[in-house]
Amino acid sequence: MITGFFHEWFLIFDERSDDMIKRENNKIKIEGMDVFELVEKYDTPLYCYSEKAISKQMKTIHSVMDSLREFHLGFALKANNNIHLINYMVKNGTWIDIVNKNEYLLAREGGTPPEKIVVNGNGKTKAFIREMIEEGVFSINIDSKEEYEVIREILREMDSPQGLPAFMLRVNPDVDPHTHPYISTGLKENKFGVQMDTARAILLSDNGLITGLHTHIGSNIYDIGAYQEAFETLLDLKKDFSRLNFINIGGGWGIDYEKNGKHIDLDAYTEHVLPILKQFDCPVMMEIGRFILGPSGVLLSKVLYKKVTEFKTFVVCDANMANMIRPALYNAYHHVKPLHVNSSDDEITADIVGGLCETGDRIAVNRDIEDVSTGDLLAILDTGAYGYSMASNYNAESRPAEILISDDECRLIRKRETVKDLLKKMKV
Amino acid sequence: MITGFFHEWFLIFDERSDDMIKRENNKIKIEGMDVFELVEKYDTPLYCYSEKAISKQMKTIHSVMDSLREFHLGFALKANNNIHLINYMVKNGTWIDIVNKNEYLLAREGGTPPEKIVVNGNGKTKAFIREMIEEGVFSINIDSKEEYEVIREILREMDSPQGLPAFMLRVNPDVDPHTHPYISTGLKENKFGVQMDTARAILLSDNGLITGLHTHIGSNIYDIGAYQEAFETLLDLKKDFSRLNFINIGGGWGIDYEKNGKHIDLDAYTEHVLPILKQFDCPVMMEIGRFILGPSGVLLSKVLYKKVTEFKTFVVCDANMANMIRPALYNAYHHVKPLHVNSSDDEITADIVGGLCETGDRIAVNRDIEDVSTGDLLAILDTGAYGYSMASNYNAESRPAEILISDDECRLIRKRETVKDLLKKMKV
Repeated sequence: MITGFFHEWFLIFDERSDDMIKRENNKIKIEGMDVFELVEKYDTPLYCYSEKAISKQMKTIHSVMDSLREFHLGFALKANNNIHLINYMVKNGTWIDIVNKNEYLLAREGGTPPEKIVVNGNGKTKAFIREMIEEGVFSINIDSKEEYEVIREILREMDSPQGLPAFMLRVNPDVDPHTHPYISTGLKENKFGVQMDTARAILLSDNGLITGLHTHIGSNIYDIGAYQEAFETLLDLKKDFSRLNFINIGGGWGIDYEKNGKHIDLDAYTEHVLPILKQFDCPVMMEIGRFILGPSGVLLSKVLYKKVTEFKTFVVCDANMANMIRPALYNAYHHVKPLHVNSSDDEITADIVGGLCETGDRIAVNRDIEDVSTGDLLAILDTGAYGYSMASNYNAESRPAEILISDDECRLIRKRETVKDLLKKMKV
Repeated sequence: MITGFFHEWFLIFDERSDDMIKRENNKIKIEGMDVFELVEKYDTPLYCYSEKAISKQMKTIHSVMDSLREFHLGFALKANNNIHLINYMVKNGTWIDIVNKNEYLLAREGGTPPEKIVVNGNGKTKAFIREMIEEGVFSINIDSKEEYEVIREILREMDSPQGLPAFMLRVNPDVDPHTHPYISTGLKENKFGVQMDTARAILLSDNGLITGLHTHIGSNIYDIGAYQEAFETLLDLKKDFSRLNFINIGGGWGIDYEKNGKHIDLDAYTEHVLPILKQFDCPVMMEIGRFILGPSGVLLSKVLYKKVTEFKTFVVCDANMANMIRPALYNAYHHVKPLHVNSSDDEITADIVGGLCETGDRIAVNRDIEDVSTGDLLAILDTGAYGYSMASNYNAESRPAEILISDDECRLIRKRETVKDLLKKMKV
């Protein structure tokens, strides 16, 4: 199969001006930095992020959402907890969404003031909630009636506390966002939030404690209709309780993983979803991870072997299910681009796999890519979110380094692990 | 649903003398240690391993395999890389199976001499192979004809090296072991080993370098027939090449995750598989991880909430997909036992989930368990293998502590992570 490949390659590298990776003057560059020099300096596997790309994604969100009366963009820390990335986003105005004490501390290390931190999650302990109240976070989003009771108990114990966070109720609107079941979070059988009837019951009995609503129907969503349905449900509820003066609509915007133009349709969002949000007539917050960081990160990997068998070709590389689990866990597609200075028409169909000891250790299956050999570089695209943050030390793999590129400068933002790091907690 | 539960509980805790957890004198004990005292001291989530259980599993393997002329039991380090567990196993005679430099160093830290280390994997770099030759490992198992060429190249460069490791060829027998596709490794479409025709071609052209064969058809296998088929294939090959004097048969013995008696049938193995292995008439090695450590480890977790909705009950606990990913990744079943000193007839049907921000974060779905409330302990059984070793810091979760219980003593073998550990590599 060699038809059409050069054309596609050409498209990716030279026409799509929004890509992080481009061929320039017989070099391959990531935001202006020579990719081979980066690899020479930092080795592979290597997570590279681009400030320019992050900024662009944030601006895209604002361009859609800023027509609302008051809009706050939040970053879902779980997508990537690197404090240097957090710092860049916070300096550019994002709030941070967290679920536990570690995430709170990382947000703080990243320079987030407590009043820009939103506390989510279905497993907040009493001690954690009390601490977050005392720290003065912006809001605590209540996941269940059981948690609501815990909060009431804390407030009774605190004896007329001052300057409380906003308490918001996470509503589960029972909407199918048509994404991977693991990251669909607003169906009635999902563990998150309270059903509408319970929400009404809590709000009726509640003497003004809860002043906002929260919902989050899932991640990597392309279905505008699902947002409409969820937010209309939320709107119905808000209309019945006039004290509700803040709406957190979660995140979930789908990105173009497959490089076929399939991503959330922001024109349709503007046309069909924004009018609903405007009817809330109160500040609106979003919590988004993937849409900001996904396309802003690339995993660079080295080819270790091209293994040709009677039945298949395997490209064995140093990216694997330890440093990038999404293909194994969600059967996720990530575009894989061999980085050759001189492109070729030779194409192979291959499984791109890691060197770990199980068949699930793969990056791509039956993928058509430009032919490669040992030592070649691969760029695994759209890996800025849920890449490093889900990495493990399976097969005793060191987790990769992370670098951040900004205005033709590049800095290490997380060092590569060594076996010493793996041993550290065992030295007891 | 309350029928029959007490009976089952009773069975688990009082009749199955081979279980790690037992009720004794109104206490719940893990190998004689009071479970509540352990949790008081080490907190949850907590991985607990039992030397007695490890020893028992190793003895079971030897009781089957020792009728072979010469048998070596190897431990697949990827199942759990704790150096203290490795040390216990190595002191009791196991060899260690590794795939990369980090695993080699951990094996060495665990007290494994190089000559008891077997090097596997489909992504061994040239530098790594050369280093393993120089370190004097027992064997290097060749995964592909491409790797074979790399080894020949190294040997040419080394200029008449002495005391070489044994070189064995990993054969892919194209056998379906009927296990999860991710851990089925001996099908022709899997990335491991060489097909029979390629194996013959390499062995024919090879001037005596390769002196053994290796195969590994997968993990958690209950199908005796698959072993028969694979080893008969291997036997055919061995008969044609008289210089082959060592066979590494991999591992894969399935364990009783579901507590319904479904595990590998060792009587059938003895009857149908051993006769084939005896025909090899040479030393045989096994590499096993799950069968040794799986049933020798328990993950203790605390209930954070019992969340009752109109549609489902959720038991939210501090075990989650960050510290135990098998249910999310493989849809794996792990038995979950609430640890109550006084058992009750009240049973609930619940999803047992973690506190992380996605629906995939679950330990068990629609499971019938004794009713629980906040603060109760859960034992998640058979988590000694592929538990900690696959753990991540997703949602910035600290990885748990690990303890090892031996003859009524208990020691910490891996400290719980703190946020300081998470930050360490970001302080650049």
